[in-house]
Amino acid sequence: MRPTVVQSSLAKRAAVEFVATAVLLAAISGSGIMGERLASGNVAIALLANSIATGAILIALILAFGEVSGAHINPMVTLSNAARGSFPWSETPAYIAAQVIGAFSGIALANIMFGLPVLFASHHVRTGWPSWIAEIVATAGLITVIGCCVRWRPASTPFAVAAYVTAAYWFFPSTSFANPAVTLARSMTDTFSGIRPLDVPAFLASQFAGAAVATAFLEWLLHEN
Amino acid sequence: MRPTVVQSSLAKRAAVEFVATAVLLAAISGSGIMGERLASGNVAIALLANSIATGAILIALILAFGEVSGAHINPMVTLSNAARGSFPWSETPAYIAAQVIGAFSGIALANIMFGLPVLFASHHVRTGWPSWIAEIVATAGLITVIGCCVRWRPASTPFAVAAYVTAAYWFFPSTSFANPAVTLARSMTDTFSGIRPLDVPAFLASQFAGAAVATAFLEWLLHEN
Amino acid sequence: MRPTVVQSSLAKRAAVEFVATAVLLAAISGSGIMGERLASGNVAIALLANSIATGAILIALILAFGEVSGAHINPMVTLSNAARGSFPWSETPAYIAAQVIGAFSGIALANIMFGLPVLFASHHVRTGWPSWIAEIVATAGLITVIGCCVRWRPASTPFAVAAYVTAAYWFFPSTSFANPAVTLARSMTDTFSGIRPLDVPAFLASQFAGAAVATAFLEWLLHEN
Amino acid sequence: MRPTVVQSSLAKRAAVEFVATAVLLAAISGSGIMGERLASGNVAIALLANSIATGAILIALILAFGEVSGAHINPMVTLSNAARGSFPWSETPAYIAAQVIGAFSGIALANIMFGLPVLFASHHVRTGWPSWIAEIVATAGLITVIGCCVRWRPASTPFAVAAYVTAAYWFFPSTSFANPAVTLARSMTDTFSGIRPLDVPAFLASQFAGAAVATAFLEWLLHEN
Repeated sequence: MRPTVVQSSLAKRAAVEFVATAVLLAAISGSGIMGERLASGNVAIALLANSIATGAILIALILAFGEVSGAHINPMVTLSNAARGSFPWSETPAYIAAQVIGAFSGIALANIMFGLPVLFASHHVRTGWPSWIAEIVATAGLITVIGCCVRWRPASTPFAVAAYVTAAYWFFPSTSFANPAVTLARSMTDTFSGIRPLDVPAFLASQFAGAAVATAFLEWLLHEN
Repeated sequence: MRPTVVQSSLAKRAAVEFVATAVLLAAISGSGIMGERLASGNVAIALLANSIATGAILIALILAFGEVSGAHINPMVTLSNAARGSFPWSETPAYIAAQVIGAFSGIALANIMFGLPVLFASHHVRTGWPSWIAEIVATAGLITVIGCCVRWRPASTPFAVAAYVTAAYWFFPSTSFANPAVTLARSMTDTFSGIRPLDVPAFLASQFAGAAVATAFLEWLLHEN
Repeated sequence: MRPTVVQSSLAKRAAVEFVATAVLLAAISGSGIMGERLASGNVAIALLANSIATGAILIALILAFGEVSGAHINPMVTLSNAARGSFPWSETPAYIAAQVIGAFSGIALANIMFGLPVLFASHHVRTGWPSWIAEIVATAGLITVIGCCVRWRPASTPFAVAAYVTAAYWFFPSTSFANPAVTLARSMTDTFSGIRPLDVPAFLASQFAGAAVATAFLEWLLHEN
Repeated sequence: MRPTVVQSSLAKRAAVEFVATAVLLAAISGSGIMGERLASGNVAIALLANSIATGAILIALILAFGEVSGAHINPMVTLSNAARGSFPWSETPAYIAAQVIGAFSGIALANIMFGLPVLFASHHVRTGWPSWIAEIVATAGLITVIGCCVRWRPASTPFAVAAYVTAAYWFFPSTSFANPAVTLARSMTDTFSGIRPLDVPAFLASQFAGAAVATAFLEWLLHEN
């Protein structure tokens, strides 16, 4: 098992979390806009583009930045690692701040590039138990996949995470946000991938619940026989 | 060749088989539902989403869990391994029970998330020699690919299995079930990926036949020159 | 560089070439049939399914069988290896016979599974300089990619070959056959992936020319500085 | 970290850059033509084919040629490496010349294969700040991903680059050229992937700007803690 904390300074690692989360959000949001514009109303084709682009950018980002910052790109990953003792609590606020600011920056970048307002609230309704259950399970699954891969096959983690996210778009009715920074930022784009600000808190709560379950499961699974 | 039986307790390994099979079935069934709902009647696009999502979730699951339980996720894999002496017969019932219960749980999860009855019998007719031949060949191919990869390129097994399954959706008229746990559970969802309960026994028999052929082939191929 | 000739007997290695080529052809032809039937007349969607399924099955086949027979699955690969001294001429006839018989067996399997005549001549016209140039370049590219990967990154060869073939479907007007066994067998299915028997000889000649160019290029590139 | 300069002579390495860039451009342009012809007017499907084919050919090319020439295939990569001291300035002109000549050769090949004029100027308008910002960011991202992967995970670089480019098609309104050789050559095909000659200079300037930013970022990130 490689050390999660590599030798770069916290400033460099936080900068990398900022950049990676910004690019991820630009990819999620931008490919949603492009897909919807070109798909002639066939939503499945737009979602295919959206899910393939998101998975592909995750491969690139985690391969490029995994050895610098761990490429968490997700506050739930950072918190779960901290709770399990594999990431220092003292560095958690810097990571999460970088991720959240990066996420909004990425949404703004996509909006600007596609000629839209820099930030504008979404009207995309995403609420109700199906979505909340989906976010609980999707987040638990993501945290579990990451925890197991980092433990046993660290070099393959980028592919596992990307593949999980690409699939999760399709079998969770919420299309699987599974990331509070992503959720917050996507409330500020009234496009294909948006979420109404009103619906954000329940998504965040569901993601916390899912991450907590996964963290406990990993503790049980990975420690002692 | 890595040992198939790793150090985790049987309880942990069976739990992992349960979780992995549940997630696999949720992905197969959920992505079928989502694909069909969004594809505006173009079945090829729905099947593209279905096959990509299934392959992707298999990469994630086998990378994450392969080092714990072997990530069989399929009673035929467990039985074939046992028959070839690389998995203990004494643990086979626990594995298969975990897989079958996991499969039904995953189908139930997808049905709940998409607002459908928890379990409801499929009316999707899948019968006749073309489908049965397909299941024999598809299962034989899957068992052969796994057996060869585990022997020679264990680290690449997740990618080989996922790629095989994604392709198999397209060239077998049955869309390739190749897994008794998957087959049983898919009889309980009347959606895109379902199979009529009446058609299940012949699929199971075909899968047994295919696995038996592949097991014999592997014995011949992998032992002595 | 790993030895091309592994320890299995010629009988086992030829059997593996037979099986692999049969499965490849069943995948090419079967996914073409399935794609065309489901795509509601949108040929791009059918070709997307066809190219993804072909690439995916190649990953599985080369990962599974590469360490046994080298997973040539293509007479041009066998001949080019022999010409470059990395495969014995004495075994070449057995390999090529296995590949050609396997190819026809795979086409027959797909035809049977999809309820069509076992073998029936194609009426798909594929002729003219654009197609012939395409086959020359496509075959040269395939042989070059394989030769370089086997020399420098053998473990990644399955992914390079699969990616090359998936791409080649799209940028060669012939959709890139690049394989005499594949070409001969595809003349016996009057479906999406077929080729008129009359057009086969020019394809074979183009493939020989492309393989010869690539073999000479590899000799220059890989030997001495 | 492997040495960027391998043992082959400059002539061989430049030849490889020529071949790789030619094949890349044939793939970009050819798959655009094929996609548009077959997609029945659904541009999203054409772009899906275009982006998947481009990513796939990059995997094959970088796996095959990375150990020979470094597989830059992009003057910005060569210049950025030279500026960072990991590639000799003295060899830079030969690399860039090979890439540019290769790019035009690849465009000409695609045009010939698809029965079009060898070279004919594009009328595809690609101008304005959204596209220029996109090219700045897309090029900066590409150079950063390559620089980080070469430093930390060289064996995975082909997959990171291919995944980045596939995603970038979808979230940059310019569809991400990010490569001066590609940009120049695509002005000479009046098809799906073309760019009006008049719009080329601003794209090149944007790419230079993006590469400069990324080179400075990499200097800061990769050196000292």
